[in-house]
Amino acid sequence: MKQLTVELGDRSYPIYIGERLLHDAASFFERHEISKRSPLLIVTDERVAPHYLQLVAENLRAGGYRVATSVVAAGEKSKSLAVLEKVVTDALTAGLDRKSTIVALGGGVVGDLAGFAAASYMRGVRFVQMPTTILAHDSSVGGKVAVNHPLAKNIIGAFHQPEMVLYDISTLKTLPERDIRAGLAEVIKEGLIWDREFVEWCDKNAEKLLALDSEALQHALYVGCCVKSIVVSQDERESGLRAILNLGHTIGHALEAVSAYDELQHGEAISIGMVGAAMLSAKLGNPPSIREETERLLRKFGLPVRIPGHMDVDAILSAMTHDKKFKEGRMVFVIPTEIGKVEINENVPVEWVREVLERLKEEA
Amino acid sequence: MKQLTVELGDRSYPIYIGERLLHDAASFFERHEISKRSPLLIVTDERVAPHYLQLVAENLRAGGYRVATSVVAAGEKSKSLAVLEKVVTDALTAGLDRKSTIVALGGGVVGDLAGFAAASYMRGVRFVQMPTTILAHDSSVGGKVAVNHPLAKNIIGAFHQPEMVLYDISTLKTLPERDIRAGLAEVIKEGLIWDREFVEWCDKNAEKLLALDSEALQHALYVGCCVKSIVVSQDERESGLRAILNLGHTIGHALEAVSAYDELQHGEAISIGMVGAAMLSAKLGNPPSIREETERLLRKFGLPVRIPGHMDVDAILSAMTHDKKFKEGRMVFVIPTEIGKVEINENVPVEWVREVLERLKEEA
Repeated sequence: MKQLTVELGDRSYPIYIGERLLHDAASFFERHEISKRSPLLIVTDERVAPHYLQLVAENLRAGGYRVATSVVAAGEKSKSLAVLEKVVTDALTAGLDRKSTIVALGGGVVGDLAGFAAASYMRGVRFVQMPTTILAHDSSVGGKVAVNHPLAKNIIGAFHQPEMVLYDISTLKTLPERDIRAGLAEVIKEGLIWDREFVEWCDKNAEKLLALDSEALQHALYVGCCVKSIVVSQDERESGLRAILNLGHTIGHALEAVSAYDELQHGEAISIGMVGAAMLSAKLGNPPSIREETERLLRKFGLPVRIPGHMDVDAILSAMTHDKKFKEGRMVFVIPTEIGKVEINENVPVEWVREVLERLKEEA
Repeated sequence: MKQLTVELGDRSYPIYIGERLLHDAASFFERHEISKRSPLLIVTDERVAPHYLQLVAENLRAGGYRVATSVVAAGEKSKSLAVLEKVVTDALTAGLDRKSTIVALGGGVVGDLAGFAAASYMRGVRFVQMPTTILAHDSSVGGKVAVNHPLAKNIIGAFHQPEMVLYDISTLKTLPERDIRAGLAEVIKEGLIWDREFVEWCDKNAEKLLALDSEALQHALYVGCCVKSIVVSQDERESGLRAILNLGHTIGHALEAVSAYDELQHGEAISIGMVGAAMLSAKLGNPPSIREETERLLRKFGLPVRIPGHMDVDAILSAMTHDKKFKEGRMVFVIPTEIGKVEINENVPVEWVREVLERLKEEA
């Protein structure tokens, strides 16, 4: 088992990464003094529940915990205020009080939804993350939780740090191949913004990672969490540095919005977005090799690097103006300046963005 | 104009109390460096909008602010996730960004709704309160914002402090008499928990207060805000002391829940609840005169002191178990020990509560 600490003063918390950790859930809960008197609520989705809900619930009950569950539909559509209300209904029905804990068992959607429920239920209760996807390594660090609005992603949310993250990589074995690839897109992103050596390591270990080799996976998730953790520790409330984590997200979120959260997975959308950011980088005078290397690496992981042909460029641009990164009328982008380094550019001309979007379609 | 500061370290903020402050809104906004580049959103309700929305919007626009508005239905039913979604729709449509400010123009419902919108929109933007009711003096101090769930009041929310509170008491002149009485219930509560002299002052000045005498009103709201501010400053996150502000609320919230948020105003419900708390106090061995004095004073202000005959005691008790104050299975009450002093009792037997509820009905 690997362990790292996300350093946030009195809100610091550990991430445990290893095999079969869910089989030992109760002892982790005890170590973190999760209340046995107050009921806790496990939030999960219909895809994860059949695999792991019983395992976790029984392990915790055997350890003396009072366990209630809330199962939501799988997929991005569960990140809504309507589903939040359902989770709160389940919390109230189970009698959760201020000393209760809400547990997210699942991927990023469940983490964001359950996390915002924990942030807002009774104005904030404790929160534990149990990620079951690769992508969730990203959302498990940093405390950003949110639901979507029909007009924009992640627009209603909070900063709410978990007590701990219990990352059982055994759960990744039940992931569809597409989810594995999409999840690795965010791992690659951590390298592209921070750590050239890790990018090279990913390049060399692509096959092992795609085959879910335990050692490679633990290393990749550990480094991914570390990069994010270093950045978040320096800027918890996203006033500056933290924005670099959004590499590929300006275009990526818009693509997700235009595809009604269905056609593209988050990791796939930011894969395309990272290529777009690299194209903008070249227009700003950085070496075109950044784009070539980025694209080659993403292709090696079987990730999409082009905008689907039927998508409308105007609709994508319009979705961007509803994004949080559209600050005071300017277009804000995370721009790679070399492999492993990025900078924030707050003055990208809208015309350049349009041109890049059109080229990302044409070159398909 | 009177002014006080709610002391919360780097989240401290001023409350300005005076006549015709809304006519000068833009200069207060400038003093607090509210952004003129980013649009701001005024949230108000259909009852307040015809009186003051144009006044405030035009004053701010004349001062160079970009102003959008979001008008919701009047009444507690607007404190819902559905109406929150509407406010966020208006915010997105108006192009609010991370540097924008959300302004609550109205009573406690608007303050709670707009405040939670400000707390959660893009994970938190700036917030300004413009209370237009007496009751809102209470919700304008302390940063507790929330919406309701069909099963429980204020169960989905956050702690989010405003930049400032602009309390224009001229707006109180358009309040219905019932709202004035109900609002004064919370003012009296501040006295009952903290300040015997202020209770006596209220007793002597009841007529002036009910007639909205400007000087009396400014004093009462100033003292009310001061008491709340002192308590909140010592316990921002409601881990201990702050709970004393809930005098009358354990029963009061349940009465509101049972009456489907319509029949009883919040102030009326806590008026009845304060009598109930005083009855529990007598059962705990405190002087019965506390209940007599409390009841006499509330009657003097024309406030209800009995549970409406048709309400079901079992339903009221059941509603209490969904309340945030029902901690780990025990019944928590704020108990007056003399006029101007209270204590938290976490072990009130449920049977006592039932008996008090039944007597509060029978004695009608």
